[in-house]
Amino acid sequence: MLFAKSLVEKSDKMVKPKDAVQKMSPYHPPTSGRGKKLRLDFNENTIGCSPKVIRALQKIDSNAMSVYPEYEDFKPVLAKHLNISPSELILSNGTDEGIKMIIDTFMEGGEEIIIPTPTFAMFKFYASVAEAKITEVLYNEDLSFPTDKVLAAINPNAKLVVLVNPNNPTGTSIAEEDIIAIIKKASENNAIVLSDEAYYGFYEKSSINLIKKYDNLFVTRTFSKAFGLAGIRLGYTLSQKDNIAALAKAGSPYNVSTLAIIAAKAALDDVEFVNKYTQEVRDNTDWFIEELSKLGLSVFPTDANFVVVKIGEKCGEVCDTLKEKGILVRNRTRDPLLEGCIRITIGTKEQCDQVLRELKTILGK
Amino acid sequence: MLFAKSLVEKSDKMVKPKDAVQKMSPYHPPTSGRGKKLRLDFNENTIGCSPKVIRALQKIDSNAMSVYPEYEDFKPVLAKHLNISPSELILSNGTDEGIKMIIDTFMEGGEEIIIPTPTFAMFKFYASVAEAKITEVLYNEDLSFPTDKVLAAINPNAKLVVLVNPNNPTGTSIAEEDIIAIIKKASENNAIVLSDEAYYGFYEKSSINLIKKYDNLFVTRTFSKAFGLAGIRLGYTLSQKDNIAALAKAGSPYNVSTLAIIAAKAALDDVEFVNKYTQEVRDNTDWFIEELSKLGLSVFPTDANFVVVKIGEKCGEVCDTLKEKGILVRNRTRDPLLEGCIRITIGTKEQCDQVLRELKTILGK
Repeated sequence: MLFAKSLVEKSDKMVKPKDAVQKMSPYHPPTSGRGKKLRLDFNENTIGCSPKVIRALQKIDSNAMSVYPEYEDFKPVLAKHLNISPSELILSNGTDEGIKMIIDTFMEGGEEIIIPTPTFAMFKFYASVAEAKITEVLYNEDLSFPTDKVLAAINPNAKLVVLVNPNNPTGTSIAEEDIIAIIKKASENNAIVLSDEAYYGFYEKSSINLIKKYDNLFVTRTFSKAFGLAGIRLGYTLSQKDNIAALAKAGSPYNVSTLAIIAAKAALDDVEFVNKYTQEVRDNTDWFIEELSKLGLSVFPTDANFVVVKIGEKCGEVCDTLKEKGILVRNRTRDPLLEGCIRITIGTKEQCDQVLRELKTILGK
Repeated sequence: MLFAKSLVEKSDKMVKPKDAVQKMSPYHPPTSGRGKKLRLDFNENTIGCSPKVIRALQKIDSNAMSVYPEYEDFKPVLAKHLNISPSELILSNGTDEGIKMIIDTFMEGGEEIIIPTPTFAMFKFYASVAEAKITEVLYNEDLSFPTDKVLAAINPNAKLVVLVNPNNPTGTSIAEEDIIAIIKKASENNAIVLSDEAYYGFYEKSSINLIKKYDNLFVTRTFSKAFGLAGIRLGYTLSQKDNIAALAKAGSPYNVSTLAIIAAKAALDDVEFVNKYTQEVRDNTDWFIEELSKLGLSVFPTDANFVVVKIGEKCGEVCDTLKEKGILVRNRTRDPLLEGCIRITIGTKEQCDQVLRELKTILGK
């Protein structure tokens, strides 16, 4: 009893986190021991990175490890790959930090972020830490992008409009004319637009060219998905150079590791590897959806390397049974619009076949 | 003329960063092409990391690179090394992100951060982004820690008191009784204390044990200095578990790379390598200071792996000439209290000898 009392007293006098953080729930994606399973739960590349990356990492020496990272040689290589100028680009510790950098640089507490939802959790997460006013706009029932609702939501208090193209977890993309309409409405309201292209490669359209024309657009990309380098934590943000200079002012000078730079440089030296893989995934998509449909499941259309599959009430059970069979998929039933749905990453033909076989057994088909 | 006008108009209507960021100056540490020089400018390990780290990295496979990083196996290893519980520890992307995490989690805009100065630039940097009120307390003229002034500065609006022990760039440490007095005064004012131990290893005292007793203390450490792993970006923060849980709520879930985890694990498997190196640096310190004094230079005492040397007016010139000779040192003349001073990292006996030889020539001794 005394012990319990003293604990309470202690907890009362402890310095508390700021209000915004106290109100947040912890974000704990389930990520332990995934490497040896068939990883279809996080939309990673399912075959590993280019062997050239491994060979480049094997050459690193002990002295290079001790030096603070240097980015000046790498940025022009990446810029050339993207057909932009190095001054239009800033590196980040995964896209995660890119998102945080944009919020930290542009948003005052109380300003509004517009987030079409369901989407990647980190937008709301960093906006909460920054004490932004969060306005979630629901995707359409068919998981298509709610252009009119997003346009209607943009108001003079809005500072940032988030687009994820194609979106995770819905898999759906946004038409370029809609993106432009949103950029224009945002600009009239002194707001910026962030278009996250994490799934570029699997989806072949991009808004990068729009940064030349619209000075309130930011595009984020990552090496975590198509390039098969989720482990290195490397993303980047593209925008007009004044915007990039502003992000650099608020960003950390050594945010990306030397090893990430070595790996990414080698990966860019073997884009054929990535192109072949993304082509294979795109080729599998229609067939995989058709096969899933044959099992009596309804599957939403997708422009990314994953599909949303409606399982219904047994959705959690199906995920658990697949896990027992060594296949990881993601239960999305708690997301708005996705009740009873799981999300499955599309891998190689063989990997898709493996999922189909197990699902057939589980569903008794 | 028309072109110039259109540029101005465009810049007028661009969405501007928030006020706090507009007021900041960009932080650009000079860090290009340092690997091939004698690096005595950033207080890194000067001999490289343990060969075991390189061997561990050479074993990585392509699949492991594609998986999001996992920390659950590594945290108990690090906790054991530190003789704490894994729940008292959170990893960060270098100490930089650890500092940012603490500020983001605990400080509301307008609350006060107390920074004894001159010190590591990132405290003021992240406090500025977070719109904190920054109170700088000047170190004593002899570069000793200004305990009384710091105690006097702690007030009910203070939320965070920064201690760097030993401090960069002064090299001076803080007595444990002074640290405790500050922790207590901070606690009475509902403030937390961050003690940065980046140079632990070169300095052998630590405040880690104090986290058991004081619930408002945070200690940061890094693999960038003694361990010779500045390139991997790995730091960590230690505090009582409720505090660590709060940091985890506001922190990114995948902030440290898989390669950093592999490297750090291998480094912890060879602490003898690090201990031997830090011992060598400590053994060189008194001798190096004495030799510098023989050149007619006044040198401040140090508890870290670097010394502050008073050169006077020619301080910039001496740095430039050393650079031409392939030796990098840091000009600190713009720091308060350090006019005419350079900071030199202490390396091996041979590396110290090389600096002394060149300085002798430059100073005409």
